[in-house]
Amino acid sequence: MARVSTPRPTKDVITDALLDITAERGLDHVSVRHVAAAAGVAIGTVQHYFPTKDAMLTAAFTEVVRRIRERVAATVLGPDVRRNLAAVLRELLPLDEPRAAEVRVQVAFAARAATMPALAELQGVILGEVTDAIAAALAHVDGGPAAQRRARAQVVLATVDGLALHAVSSRDWVTPESLAAALDDALDALLPPGDPTAAPGDVVGDRS
Amino acid sequence: MARVSTPRPTKDVITDALLDITAERGLDHVSVRHVAAAAGVAIGTVQHYFPTKDAMLTAAFTEVVRRIRERVAATVLGPDVRRNLAAVLRELLPLDEPRAAEVRVQVAFAARAATMPALAELQGVILGEVTDAIAAALAHVDGGPAAQRRARAQVVLATVDGLALHAVSSRDWVTPESLAAALDDALDALLPPGDPTAAPGDVVGDRS
Repeated sequence: MARVSTPRPTKDVITDALLDITAERGLDHVSVRHVAAAAGVAIGTVQHYFPTKDAMLTAAFTEVVRRIRERVAATVLGPDVRRNLAAVLRELLPLDEPRAAEVRVQVAFAARAATMPALAELQGVILGEVTDAIAAALAHVDGGPAAQRRARAQVVLATVDGLALHAVSSRDWVTPESLAAALDDALDALLPPGDPTAAPGDVVGDRS
Repeated sequence: MARVSTPRPTKDVITDALLDITAERGLDHVSVRHVAAAAGVAIGTVQHYFPTKDAMLTAAFTEVVRRIRERVAATVLGPDVRRNLAAVLRELLPLDEPRAAEVRVQVAFAARAATMPALAELQGVILGEVTDAIAAALAHVDGGPAAQRRARAQVVLATVDGLALHAVSSRDWVTPESLAAALDDALDALLPPGDPTAAPGDVVGDRS
C-alpha cells in the first residue's frame, strides 16, 4: 500500500531545524524555544524528543555523521585506493555550504564534548570508526604493520579535521580550492603511493 | 602573610577567572555573573572590562595565545631545525592539564568564531602568524619554494590542531604518549629531514 508521500517523522523535522540553527547561528542559539519555532511544533514536542540541550546537540551531530556516511557510500570508487581515500576525505571538508554547515555542527559538538564526558564518549566512538576505515584503506597501499597503519590513519583524520576546523573558524584563510589542494598535499605526504591493483570494494566507504 | 607583590590588575584577574571557567566547564557556563563570582569582583566591574560574551571569549583566547608564545619563546632550541619545530609544536598539544585547558579554550573560541565574523577575523590572523613561523622554519629544511613551504606549513598546523581537537573532545582516544607519538609520526611524514647546519636562531619562536 504505497503512499505517494509520507509525512516526515516529527523527530526528523525537529532535528533538521536544530541542525539549521546550529550551523547558521552557533550552538549558543540552540534553545528549545528557537528549535520549536523553526520546526513549527510546540515547545513540549521538542522537549519530548530532546529533553536536554546535550540531547539536541547529539541528535544534530548524529545526523551529520549519517549524512556523511550516506555521501561516502555514494562516492564513485575506482581501482586506485589512494584516489578513493582522497574522494572520501573530501566529503569531510567544508568545500561547499552544506558541508560547511556540517563542519560547524561538528565543531560545536567537539567544543561541548571537551567538557561533557557523555558527548566525549560518542566522539571517541565516531573517531574510532573513521580511523578504522582509513586504516583499512591504508592496508591496500603498503601502509606498514597494523599498528603503524592505525597511527597514520589517526594522523590523516586529524589533518582533515584540522583543515576543516581552520576553514570554518577563520576568515580570509582558505578558499575551497586551496582547501582541496591542502588535502591533496597532505595525502601526498602522509600516504604511500597508490596500488592500482587493489580491489575497489575493499576501500573506505560502507556501500551497503 | 605579608604580601610584597603588587596587586594584579583587575582585568587580568577577571581574564584568569574566565579562562578557568571556559576550560573546566565550557563556554556555555561563561556568564558575567559566574565570572564576577569566580574573580571576586562586582558584576559591573566585569561588564566594564568585557561588555559582551564575545569580548570575554576573545580575551580568554588572546591570553591563551600569549601563554603559548611565552612558552615557545622559552623553548630550548638546538641546532636541528626539525627537532626545534617538534618542540615548539608540542606546546600546542594538550600533553598536560594546563595545555589541555588552553586547547579547550581554543576549541570554544573556534566553535564560536565559526558563526561570528569578528572572531573569525582574529582566528585568521593567529593562524596566519603561526603558519608564517612554521613556513620560516621549513625554509631551513629544504621545504621547496616559498608557496610550497607555506602550503605545507598550513597542513602541519592543521595536523597539530586536529590532533589537539580530537584529544580534548573525545574519551579513550589518545593518551599524552600516543599524542606525542602521533605528532612525531606526522612530522616524519610532513617534513623533509632536518639540516643540522641551520642556525638555531632562525627557527620558529620569538625569543625577544
